[in-house]
Amino acid sequence: MQDSQFVMLLWFVGVLAEAMTGALAAGRKRMDLFGVMIVGCATAIGGGTLRDILLGNYPLIWVEHSHYLLAIILASLLPVLIAPLMRYLTTLFLTIDALGLAVFSVIGAQKTLALGFSPSVAIVMGVITGVFGGVIRDVLCNEIPLIFHKELYGIVSIVTASCYVILQMADTSAWISLGVSLWLGFSLRLLAIRFRWSAPTFYYFDKAQ
Amino acid sequence: MQDSQFVMLLWFVGVLAEAMTGALAAGRKRMDLFGVMIVGCATAIGGGTLRDILLGNYPLIWVEHSHYLLAIILASLLPVLIAPLMRYLTTLFLTIDALGLAVFSVIGAQKTLALGFSPSVAIVMGVITGVFGGVIRDVLCNEIPLIFHKELYGIVSIVTASCYVILQMADTSAWISLGVSLWLGFSLRLLAIRFRWSAPTFYYFDKAQ
Amino acid sequence: MQDSQFVMLLWFVGVLAEAMTGALAAGRKRMDLFGVMIVGCATAIGGGTLRDILLGNYPLIWVEHSHYLLAIILASLLPVLIAPLMRYLTTLFLTIDALGLAVFSVIGAQKTLALGFSPSVAIVMGVITGVFGGVIRDVLCNEIPLIFHKELYGIVSIVTASCYVILQMADTSAWISLGVSLWLGFSLRLLAIRFRWSAPTFYYFDKAQ
Repeated sequence: MQDSQFVMLLWFVGVLAEAMTGALAAGRKRMDLFGVMIVGCATAIGGGTLRDILLGNYPLIWVEHSHYLLAIILASLLPVLIAPLMRYLTTLFLTIDALGLAVFSVIGAQKTLALGFSPSVAIVMGVITGVFGGVIRDVLCNEIPLIFHKELYGIVSIVTASCYVILQMADTSAWISLGVSLWLGFSLRLLAIRFRWSAPTFYYFDKAQ
Repeated sequence: MQDSQFVMLLWFVGVLAEAMTGALAAGRKRMDLFGVMIVGCATAIGGGTLRDILLGNYPLIWVEHSHYLLAIILASLLPVLIAPLMRYLTTLFLTIDALGLAVFSVIGAQKTLALGFSPSVAIVMGVITGVFGGVIRDVLCNEIPLIFHKELYGIVSIVTASCYVILQMADTSAWISLGVSLWLGFSLRLLAIRFRWSAPTFYYFDKAQ
Repeated sequence: MQDSQFVMLLWFVGVLAEAMTGALAAGRKRMDLFGVMIVGCATAIGGGTLRDILLGNYPLIWVEHSHYLLAIILASLLPVLIAPLMRYLTTLFLTIDALGLAVFSVIGAQKTLALGFSPSVAIVMGVITGVFGGVIRDVLCNEIPLIFHKELYGIVSIVTASCYVILQMADTSAWISLGVSLWLGFSLRLLAIRFRWSAPTFYYFDKAQ
């Protein structure tokens, strides 16, 4: 019970961070408040929603518990209120966002395992939960998804979800699997930001195009 | 019976209007007839399809009644035939489109309530049915969705769906709920066009980006 | 048994070709290896995945057989290794891609018929399976989908899927339906490339926009 409450708390941190990245991206495109709300919500719950649709896992969390949606809508409108403060909060915001990435990757893998799917599907779904909120955000903002060409965001998600799944397969206790993989993902992301690590780029040029 | 036939007629008006906005958007991008057809159909049935996927409500309407699809395909190709006339029909077209928005928002909410979901989910699904056809259209046309930064389209959808749900919750008769919310949404949208009302914009700028 | 093994082989050819078009498109946008992998996989399995979600046909193939996913991930990373060779392989690549289009269109229609849906739904699902991988690829790469404005890609898919469904409705043997429609789609696509055939374009211009 305490376990699931702690995961729930982490999930809210992740949703809050994602909703804020969505709202800020919408603000950069000078969207109106409706746009900010939709992009914020889609960023926050898009990854998990896509995972559950791919798994056929109904009802969706925010359809069953519709009061969550109200919290997510409020979170997506929060940056509008605190925008003038945001530039002083960059470090705090990046830290919360890094925590959100690790949390979503672990929760995505955890839920998929709990539904009885294979470890490799659990890793894939952890990554989808972790990064596709951001992909949907950037598609709605008419940008190439940031995670496809910048920083170790995607790789961090793969490492985090894999770490959790491997520890669970090795019959490690739930708490240790959760703690170790969260800590690994969180610190890897912060190190990637700090030292500007990024994955190797593939550049293809052909005259035909 | 008459009730559902009337809603059905309104639904066709909405689908026709949406298919036409999709086809015109495709024409602005100089797409070929295949592109016009796909964008037209995706605009017309995209919102309702997304709603049913999110609710896990199968089979989809156009999969079960595949003759509807033929009508939608024809509607999406109609603007190609009447394009030279379209500029004289702008007012008629905006009026049909406004009616379509109100109809989709109400139908989306109505179907969700009928499936036994909560009032707040019904409002959300009304809005998704009302506006996501247009979002999918703009994503396929590589534009920032119009409804995220122009006019009161999204807000009208929220007001219309909320009005219907609140009236239904208050045990108002089906006809009055339908009529009042359609009338409210339709006139609000026309007033927004006439007086260029729009929702407040959020503009966020940071050097980091 | 041999029948399904042959279709399976063709399916792998299609998936390989689609994963490669995705990876090359990602390379043109200078994405990193994570982006290449996601865009490659989404292109390869996006069309079939969308079909199964629209039909409510769970579990998805790559969720049930997760080892397929490993093959698709490897296929999406292949172009990174052979990129310097790709410009000498253009003809081979276009040929494989044409085969992939025909195969996906037929398989999409076949699976939909096997699930008991109507012939017209089968044609629609054949087209969705055939072309939506490419649509998702171009949306993720922030481009207007190529198939909406270039060459006979979409029309070939419609013709191929329709041919298969009509032959099956006429009680033609499975092998002949498969062979004739594959051959028709494959040669039509190659002819379209060779003679630069394309569908008529719709160009709509209005001052209002």
